[in-house]
Amino acid sequence: MPPLTVAFVGASTGRWRIERLETVAGSPLASASRLEVVEGRGAARPAAGAVWVLRGVTSNERYVTSSEHSELAARQEPLGRAGSTRAALIPVRKSEAWWDLAQDQRRRIFEESSHHIATGLEYLPAVARRLHHGRDLGEPFDFLTWFEFAPGYTAAFEELVRRLRETEEWTYVEREIDLRLAQ
Amino acid sequence: MPPLTVAFVGASTGRWRIERLETVAGSPLASASRLEVVEGRGAARPAAGAVWVLRGVTSNERYVTSSEHSELAARQEPLGRAGSTRAALIPVRKSEAWWDLAQDQRRRIFEESSHHIATGLEYLPAVARRLHHGRDLGEPFDFLTWFEFAPGYTAAFEELVRRLRETEEWTYVEREIDLRLAQ
Repeated sequence: MPPLTVAFVGASTGRWRIERLETVAGSPLASASRLEVVEGRGAARPAAGAVWVLRGVTSNERYVTSSEHSELAARQEPLGRAGSTRAALIPVRKSEAWWDLAQDQRRRIFEESSHHIATGLEYLPAVARRLHHGRDLGEPFDFLTWFEFAPGYTAAFEELVRRLRETEEWTYVEREIDLRLAQ
Repeated sequence: MPPLTVAFVGASTGRWRIERLETVAGSPLASASRLEVVEGRGAARPAAGAVWVLRGVTSNERYVTSSEHSELAARQEPLGRAGSTRAALIPVRKSEAWWDLAQDQRRRIFEESSHHIATGLEYLPAVARRLHHGRDLGEPFDFLTWFEFAPGYTAAFEELVRRLRETEEWTYVEREIDLRLAQ
């Protein structure tokens, strides 16, 4: 799939209601009541009346091996499922120390130490997920990860987020915002 | 180093004289007589009178291991050396098949099969080099690689380019332009 640019627009209108907007680390993000997700060409345009616009681009995988890719592909489900009326958007910026690491060092921390992929797999297919990269676009966040799940899965999702935050990988996170949304 | 956006502007003015502009694979690039390299904020602005503008962003390393990184760092020299009055810009686009590969598959082809890093090391420090990524910016080329060297190193540089084009990695290249420049 070619890269897709996506804009997450915080405003007073939008398809998703922002139920929680929490600053986990670093500088806060201004509060907004609704969120709209704009994909493709429209994502590059200024959004009228926006409190903030966070942009990212889907891209090729950076750490996943061939066998991990097959496991993920076999278990994950697409965005937009009818029952998935809860969502989360977690913008994250990592430190320069992370980006200065070589590929094999980042992979070791990401998976061999932090089990990012293996942990995520435990929550499939209940959680659908899409990762957007912002660093090379000059955006304030390196990653915007978007998650969708059913209301009954909220507690399990909290557990997933908590487990990832306890990892070695997360010691490189210098800014993190946690938005929870509902339709 | 945070990502740096760079624009390569083909026009009738510019610091570098374009001595050769060759289409190696895929659709051609219009001819131009001069090239300017614009870094940072100015790189995002439209360039008046440009025949074309190719943009890319320096980014974190994608395949290099820690030990390879140390070898490269020990041997490579910066851009802008006084004697480096010859340059090359090689814009490349790889196929969707390449980008669909998992990280370990791309690494195997890139280095274990094609020896991209090991081959490049043989030409250090004579060749100074900077890689710019364009794919996530929606640019026509995935990579813009810029090389600088002394006039006496021209034949050796031709050999480097020829060796890389013979590799398994290059079977994934679907568009490639080769520009040679002089001051």
